[in-house]
Amino acid sequence: MPNKRLKASGKKAVILLSGGLDSAVALYFAKKQGFKCHCLVFDYHQRHRREIKSARAVAESAGSPIEILKIHLPAKGSSLLDANLRLTTYDLRLKGIPATYVPGRNIIFLSFALSFAETEKASAIFIGAHAQDYSGYPDCRPDFYRDFRRVAKSGTKVGVEGRPIEICTPLIHKTKAQIIKMGKRLGVPFALTWSCYRGARVPCGKCDSCYYRIKGFKEAGIKDI
Amino acid sequence: MPNKRLKASGKKAVILLSGGLDSAVALYFAKKQGFKCHCLVFDYHQRHRREIKSARAVAESAGSPIEILKIHLPAKGSSLLDANLRLTTYDLRLKGIPATYVPGRNIIFLSFALSFAETEKASAIFIGAHAQDYSGYPDCRPDFYRDFRRVAKSGTKVGVEGRPIEICTPLIHKTKAQIIKMGKRLGVPFALTWSCYRGARVPCGKCDSCYYRIKGFKEAGIKDI
Repeated sequence: MPNKRLKASGKKAVILLSGGLDSAVALYFAKKQGFKCHCLVFDYHQRHRREIKSARAVAESAGSPIEILKIHLPAKGSSLLDANLRLTTYDLRLKGIPATYVPGRNIIFLSFALSFAETEKASAIFIGAHAQDYSGYPDCRPDFYRDFRRVAKSGTKVGVEGRPIEICTPLIHKTKAQIIKMGKRLGVPFALTWSCYRGARVPCGKCDSCYYRIKGFKEAGIKDI
Repeated sequence: MPNKRLKASGKKAVILLSGGLDSAVALYFAKKQGFKCHCLVFDYHQRHRREIKSARAVAESAGSPIEILKIHLPAKGSSLLDANLRLTTYDLRLKGIPATYVPGRNIIFLSFALSFAETEKASAIFIGAHAQDYSGYPDCRPDFYRDFRRVAKSGTKVGVEGRPIEICTPLIHKTKAQIIKMGKRLGVPFALTWSCYRGARVPCGKCDSCYYRIKGFKEAGIKDI
């Protein structure tokens, strides 16, 4: 696990920030470790684009610069991108990969982060992927990150000639409740974060993302906002 | 080597097309193998953007649909992107990774191709990376493709649940002369392709890309148009 060996004082890190709770905790964790953090946010026509506003507020609260990249994902058929598709409410009986899965999303995000990190001479990338996600999304599982670390080594100049950029997943084995407790200790401003997939004015409280947030705060014994 | 095991009749493939000679050969090779080819082209503010026009012409000649994705690469400092930086002429004495290296470029291109392929239910991705490139660019070396194949397996739904999308590099161990001979056999319309990094009205004949093209045609004993 490369996450534990980091000596970060003054070093730069790229943080993949979404506006949600997990990536905010990843940002505050990296900052606490001494990294000079540079946030990377994607506007990919997601249904819940209001999370970008939250990402701006979170980055500002941490005093970190932010870069927003507009990209057009070639993926179709995800209910997270297509407002014509029904966004299901949380259902424990549903097994397998959820309909909100966007093919290649984290692979694309990490690839841009790798390019950005190499350009900015950053030594690490932080992403808030974690255990509860990997019950569903393939690109949130430890196996995928192990393999992407290999790509970061063999596919970049810095990886081939020197020390590869670290792909840090400090939340990967944590539950949502543990992440919330960790965020509380780190002083993460939860009120600024946005989780709901629907992206309306107030959270729906019913989608997968709302479900896990509510459950997490309850289990952590912490009041949301 | 997955390239040899392909039984492609009627199957779909995504072809990373640049407008250059190599990717045109990769397209015609995939077509010959029986793949229904869908070309993916990137407009990433490259200096030689006129290669996109060539890519359109090449795709049309093969009767293949084309998708052009505009992306903003976060990379800076590459003479291929920044017209203020000097584009060096070919120099045999220069060792190491050339100044035209764009951090993460093929990683980003392949990630988009993976997303596109999974969405379109394509079973393979073809990229024209090859031996001569990997004397310089890390993301043109066999090691990188070995590692990216692992990502294609562990990071996508189709890779986890079924048969991963194949990453095909049919030119990887070939010299430019061998690629040109192969293209000749496949009927690749070389006159439609564009190689020069400068992207002016006529090829400069001096940049790395022109150098290898001229040398390749000479060694193959074939006349470039």
